[in-house]
Amino acid sequence: MSNIPKIVILGAGYGGILTAQRLQKELKYNEADVTLVNRHDYHYITTHLHMPAAGTDTIEHSRVPISKLIDEFKIDLVKSTVKEIRVQEKKVILEDGLLTYDYLVIGLGGEPETFGIRGMKEHAMTIRSINSVRMIREHVEYQFALYKNDRRESRLNFVVGGAGFSGIEFVAELADRIPVLCREFDVDPNRVNIYNVEAAPTALPGFDPELVEYAMDVLKRKGVTFRIGVPIKECLPDGVIVGEGEKIQAQTIVWTGGIRGNHIIEDAGFEVMRGRVKVDEFLRAPGYDHIFIIGDNSLFFNPEGRPYPPTAQIAMQQGVTCARNVVAAIRRRQPHKFVFSNKGTVASLGKGEAVAVVGGRKMKGWTAAQLKKIVDMRYLFIIGGIPLVLKKGRFF
Amino acid sequence: MSNIPKIVILGAGYGGILTAQRLQKELKYNEADVTLVNRHDYHYITTHLHMPAAGTDTIEHSRVPISKLIDEFKIDLVKSTVKEIRVQEKKVILEDGLLTYDYLVIGLGGEPETFGIRGMKEHAMTIRSINSVRMIREHVEYQFALYKNDRRESRLNFVVGGAGFSGIEFVAELADRIPVLCREFDVDPNRVNIYNVEAAPTALPGFDPELVEYAMDVLKRKGVTFRIGVPIKECLPDGVIVGEGEKIQAQTIVWTGGIRGNHIIEDAGFEVMRGRVKVDEFLRAPGYDHIFIIGDNSLFFNPEGRPYPPTAQIAMQQGVTCARNVVAAIRRRQPHKFVFSNKGTVASLGKGEAVAVVGGRKMKGWTAAQLKKIVDMRYLFIIGGIPLVLKKGRFF
Ligand SMILES: Cc1cc2nc3c(=O)[nH]c(=O)nc-3n(C[C@H](O)[C@H](O)[C@H](O)COP(=O)(O)OP(=O)(O)OC[C@H]3O[C@@H](n4cnc5c(N)ncnc54)[C@H](O)[C@@H]3O)c2cc1C
Ligand SMILES: Cc1cc2nc3c(=O)[nH]c(=O)nc-3n(C[C@H](O)[C@H](O)[C@H](O)COP(=O)(O)OP(=O)(O)OC[C@H]3O[C@@H](n4cnc5c(N)ncnc54)[C@H](O)[C@@H]3O)c2cc1C
Repeated sequence: MSNIPKIVILGAGYGGILTAQRLQKELKYNEADVTLVNRHDYHYITTHLHMPAAGTDTIEHSRVPISKLIDEFKIDLVKSTVKEIRVQEKKVILEDGLLTYDYLVIGLGGEPETFGIRGMKEHAMTIRSINSVRMIREHVEYQFALYKNDRRESRLNFVVGGAGFSGIEFVAELADRIPVLCREFDVDPNRVNIYNVEAAPTALPGFDPELVEYAMDVLKRKGVTFRIGVPIKECLPDGVIVGEGEKIQAQTIVWTGGIRGNHIIEDAGFEVMRGRVKVDEFLRAPGYDHIFIIGDNSLFFNPEGRPYPPTAQIAMQQGVTCARNVVAAIRRRQPHKFVFSNKGTVASLGKGEAVAVVGGRKMKGWTAAQLKKIVDMRYLFIIGGIPLVLKKGRFF
Repeated sequence: MSNIPKIVILGAGYGGILTAQRLQKELKYNEADVTLVNRHDYHYITTHLHMPAAGTDTIEHSRVPISKLIDEFKIDLVKSTVKEIRVQEKKVILEDGLLTYDYLVIGLGGEPETFGIRGMKEHAMTIRSINSVRMIREHVEYQFALYKNDRRESRLNFVVGGAGFSGIEFVAELADRIPVLCREFDVDPNRVNIYNVEAAPTALPGFDPELVEYAMDVLKRKGVTFRIGVPIKECLPDGVIVGEGEKIQAQTIVWTGGIRGNHIIEDAGFEVMRGRVKVDEFLRAPGYDHIFIIGDNSLFFNPEGRPYPPTAQIAMQQGVTCARNVVAAIRRRQPHKFVFSNKGTVASLGKGEAVAVVGGRKMKGWTAAQLKKIVDMRYLFIIGGIPLVLKKGRFF
């Protein structure tokens, strides 16, 4: 049995991939064994999934084989599903095996949070993986095909629950997609309704109000009907009950209204808030020097004492710090504090439209849309260099 | 009120379009009023529908706006659905109006015949129109998306009932399509099953036995499982009961096992056999000198006293004779006898494969596949000339 420390990374999302790539760069030969576990043999670009979900882009622009991103001579890639983490035994139970670790990095990403809204889990679709996204795309197309045969108007009603970033971005793509589907299926576009329902008093809560107004205007012009400040009370197989009991008939309901941490974290016995673990300044789980939790599974507080919202941006930055701190731990050096550097926020509003705040500057329209592309390409560049940008980048 | 005779053509399929085009050519200015009624504003090429049904070709290769095929200065185009024919009153009831006629041409095409098999009408899809075809394509794709989420194996089982010409042609396209869908949805092709179930003792009943064997070999190599001589006893939402009670689990059932005449013919009081009217040698309904019935709605007997099978070929030829006979009736001339000239039969077996009998010669493989394309293009040429061949023809 070898004596070199075992590092296990769970999840090859934004956080996990960045951790793995940095470890592979910084670790010396035989300094540690690194294993990366992921449910699929590909990494998906979650921030891009709203496009294939609506059908405005292909799946292949949203994923990359993990083997192209890491050096398999340096890191063991295990394609499997994590079932359980046994922190006392330092073991990870996979669906088809078992791993032991000395250092554990948890980057399993979030899960939809339905806030106990009745029927939401059963009847709504969510944007969370390649499979879920293909499901939404096919479901939407299928409604058009069915409509042409049974003429049920509710097939042409699409409800998106949640007007946060992913809700707004998906609604925008859907609004771009509808005219194409209408042509393809000979459906009058005026018969189609896209409802975006949000319980909070505003769309894109926390974002600049002027840009929120701009975004809503753009989407209204694309045909979106907003129901803001209106909670979904119940989700049914054929619609949603909103506000004071009004029913919106719809065969398609996509829920983007909330994200919580992966249930595996909670099951492992960590103390959680909405499934997330409040990590220390070094990204470690409280009480466990050798367990790091990053991305959507962690809760990190800003200097004002409020948690940062879960984003790809923070997950990536945490991945980098996490890798440094694992290396520091192995070398018995001081760990590094995680400091979030906000590069800004962009929300795409479909073809040629977006809103953004970068360094306190507001941007909108075409310029912001270009920025969105640059952000996407920058990510491709970080994880895969120029070849990946050329292969997966969307230049138009 | 004008005194010129009114000709009404019901259906713009193979028979109806040919009738309309010939009338528009032969009739002199103000010699008659011609109205062509069709449910859609496009003509679809039924013999091509197995491709978009499987998703191996686009819808747009299977249809043409009727306005491109007829001269609207000479023929009134009415986009409407025929509800009823009142032969005593010489009236046609449309969903949104009423037409009177002096001469009536009925070319409303066939309907699926389910032979009273329980559940078939409710649970099976059929290839019969653009809408039904889009339905099949989307349904099949949706099963792949659903499978990736619920892993129900029956989603990957596809049952095609009937191994006649349209059944075989559809099965072949489906077999070509499955590998593409498997790649797109990350499904192991070995998990997918295509069953072709036929009650008759052979596939392609009536066709040359050597070619039938060839066709089945080609399709078996493409992964099709044949169940020949095995009747479907019942169709369920999740499969079919065949033979002595065996159940084939499947979420997708496409029925191609039979065609009958349009129910409107029977409802009008004509004497029918499987919904078809046995017409006289001039294509007239018995007892009605001024009503012509062509294509899938008519039954025409060969010199040996057996009915010709309903095909596009005979429908087209009948359209031509029918037009001549309507003109003859208006001009009080002798009508022309209809004589079917068999140009041969081709059945495509997917990409690069087909079987054919032409002038007593057997053909198979690539040569037969080329012939199929030539037949398709010939039809496009007949109805729309070179421009239509260039626009809708499939050259590869
Ligand atoms: C539609 C949409 C748009 C978004 N847009 C933006 C945006 O524009 N900007 C932004 O900053 N953020 C955006 N986000 C949020 C961002 O995507 C997440 O915050 C980010 O993905 C979190 O990264 P992560 O590494 O924690 O997890 P993820 O990127 O979700 O990765 C988790 C990985 O773990 C794997 N996994 C999960 N469970 C298991 C298991 N049991 N066993 C094995 N593997 C498992 C998954 O397959 C996945 O590969 C968006 C989110 C969505 C849904
Ligand atoms: C998959 C498939 C493959 C085939 N392949 C071949 C082949 O290779 N070779 C061959 O010779 N034959 C083939 N056939 C058979 C051939 O398509 C038919 O025999 C032919 O279409 C009959 O022509 P028709 O003019 O009678 O009717 P159709 O072509 O069916 O046209 C009927 C028209 O009437 C319209 N209509 C129907 N009801 C109404 C209504 N109530 N009101 C208004 N309009 C209405 C329809 O929309 C349609 O436009 C195939 C059939 C199928 C299904």
